[in-house]
Amino acid sequence: MKLAERIGAITGGGSDGWEIYYRTRDLLAAGVPVLNLTIGEHDVRTDPAILAAMDQSARAGNTGYSFGPGKQELRAAIAERVAAQTGVATTWENVIVTPGGQGGLFAAHMALCDPGDRALYIDPYYATYPGTIRATGAVDVPVPTRSRDAFQPTADVLAAHAPGARSLLINTPNNPTGVVWSRDTLETVAQVCRDHDLWLISDEVYDSQIWDGAHLSPRALPGMAERTLVIGSMSKSHAMTGSRLGWVIAPPEVIRAIAVLATNTTYGVPAFIQDAALFALRQGADFEAAVAEPFRRRRSLARAVLDRQQAVRLIPSSGAMYLMLDIRATGLSGAAFAERLLEQERIAVMPGESFGTAAAGHVRVAMTIEDRAFVTALERLCAFAAQRQAA
Amino acid sequence: MKLAERIGAITGGGSDGWEIYYRTRDLLAAGVPVLNLTIGEHDVRTDPAILAAMDQSARAGNTGYSFGPGKQELRAAIAERVAAQTGVATTWENVIVTPGGQGGLFAAHMALCDPGDRALYIDPYYATYPGTIRATGAVDVPVPTRSRDAFQPTADVLAAHAPGARSLLINTPNNPTGVVWSRDTLETVAQVCRDHDLWLISDEVYDSQIWDGAHLSPRALPGMAERTLVIGSMSKSHAMTGSRLGWVIAPPEVIRAIAVLATNTTYGVPAFIQDAALFALRQGADFEAAVAEPFRRRRSLARAVLDRQQAVRLIPSSGAMYLMLDIRATGLSGAAFAERLLEQERIAVMPGESFGTAAAGHVRVAMTIEDRAFVTALERLCAFAAQRQAA
Repeated sequence: MKLAERIGAITGGGSDGWEIYYRTRDLLAAGVPVLNLTIGEHDVRTDPAILAAMDQSARAGNTGYSFGPGKQELRAAIAERVAAQTGVATTWENVIVTPGGQGGLFAAHMALCDPGDRALYIDPYYATYPGTIRATGAVDVPVPTRSRDAFQPTADVLAAHAPGARSLLINTPNNPTGVVWSRDTLETVAQVCRDHDLWLISDEVYDSQIWDGAHLSPRALPGMAERTLVIGSMSKSHAMTGSRLGWVIAPPEVIRAIAVLATNTTYGVPAFIQDAALFALRQGADFEAAVAEPFRRRRSLARAVLDRQQAVRLIPSSGAMYLMLDIRATGLSGAAFAERLLEQERIAVMPGESFGTAAAGHVRVAMTIEDRAFVTALERLCAFAAQRQAA
Repeated sequence: MKLAERIGAITGGGSDGWEIYYRTRDLLAAGVPVLNLTIGEHDVRTDPAILAAMDQSARAGNTGYSFGPGKQELRAAIAERVAAQTGVATTWENVIVTPGGQGGLFAAHMALCDPGDRALYIDPYYATYPGTIRATGAVDVPVPTRSRDAFQPTADVLAAHAPGARSLLINTPNNPTGVVWSRDTLETVAQVCRDHDLWLISDEVYDSQIWDGAHLSPRALPGMAERTLVIGSMSKSHAMTGSRLGWVIAPPEVIRAIAVLATNTTYGVPAFIQDAALFALRQGADFEAAVAEPFRRRRSLARAVLDRQQAVRLIPSSGAMYLMLDIRATGLSGAAFAERLLEQERIAVMPGESFGTAAAGHVRVAMTIEDRAFVTALERLCAFAAQRQAA
């Protein structure tokens, strides 16, 4: 029996790029010790106080349907966080609660792009971006960036891809690069969106993980609030990856459109999880800073290690839980480097090639294991690269 | 700024049919007492033992990503329930866990139907069916049924709609009619699917609510397992509507396709909810029977009330938490009847017209309030209908 053609289109028939991760999982399951720097997930679990709030809500009877765009109190709390962080007037009517940031990404593209529409995104990219766009029937168009530009898009390349496109998806602080895009870059992005009448989908799920300066949301730039959808999530800021609670910030008419989709795709997010998220948001910025602190600390530790060697080059890292390392001096591809590092050193990192073509010859390091093991892993990675370079 | 055309297509530009429900909600919020028989949700909350299992799982650290098709233990438990209930060999590879039955419905159509494909469903229908199909870009084609056939589809009408279609969506026990389709009907459905090479999507979320006889899944009929997707859920069988945990049962290649979609649309279902569902399933059939018992009891109470009058006619009711009443003898449409009943008697029921055109002149009664109030509501509904009939 025939399946929908969209299924084959989503995967493109190729690998999903997560071979190193799967191999690592298999090795760990077989009892082989691996220093696992592949996956973007905290090495702590969700805070027990948040789980207690969830339990309290469930036991109080919040176990029935909660369809629609989310509880108004939670929507208001999310709006308040966004307004405080960005300075852009935001109310509960600008917010819809989604099943994780991934649910928001999919819903945003569903609401904006019809089959055949060109939907742009920046290469390198978070692994699900192309598949998410293809799942909607839109045509996914990567916009390449360069290592020497810290993988930030330039005006000329953006302008070359913009004509006829419906939307542009960006991500800052960036996964996989750890780069916080500059104000100049975001102003360029905004200019291109205004000039070419593009919707901007701004994935800001790492907005609490900034090591230098402050988070700048492109929704705050002139003329952008009416054409920007911001994707947010409790996953990274509150170590709630498994709770699947995210949101989209957008003009009210877009929120209403996404609410229609929600009714017909998922029928809302569990109320007790919404209440847990509300409790978590009310813990304030200090709580978020505490969740981010291990990555801030490890990024400093990493810089100390990387400053002592020349075999790999760190892409300027100012945010998110990742480091992107240029390993081209080893003469290896990112994939070959990652494979050999795993087999020889039992250290797992993601090949840059898993995130598009722009980051070929790079590897992504997730700063998600405890400090001492993290430093050891980086030191051994550098030594491995130095050996390869000398070879 | 322009939204995707699919958004307008989903709603068809018209009302969503839930006006009576919204009006009831507003009245109740304003302190006006209304006997609310609109919504298909238990008058009990999720069992505290299930919530305790969820809390225990979350505190044990199951708060991280759980992407993929669901925990293998839960998939195996669901497969076991399906195999026991239907006699069809079913393993964990036939199961994917989805965000509620609604998530399963959407994913099933996404996996089977490309934009422009004809996707059939039976009228009257559960409210989200057409919107769910349209959200995928497929063309939603209602197959009409008749009150005198207990709203079960006939061979000739099915055969007239089948040529060129990709899929057929059915639901038994049925919402909104409360009818459990006969073996003859299901054999007819199966024959049409085989003859016209259709996928069958069988929504069986009310499989634990059968008042006469036993549940028959069309997946158990000859040659159907390889072309049938069964939608299931913990919502109705375990009073877990708000937990958003459902599933699709299908051949492994369909499950793999839906897993690809899941990665790009929602990124899995919370692990602690999966563990709660596993605990709930392990309570066995007696637990499910206890959750269904109030509806079984109220259906008997309703028959006693309805047997004493001639103003309304009960469509033969054998399952699910609903009664469908033929109120055409009053000379009113279902919508007018429901409106007046709400304004004059403060009793809220759903117009048949909210579920398509086939159930015009009928109203759906949800058996979801406590017994005494339920009997009072039905008695007053019958008296109201008798007055209208006499007028």
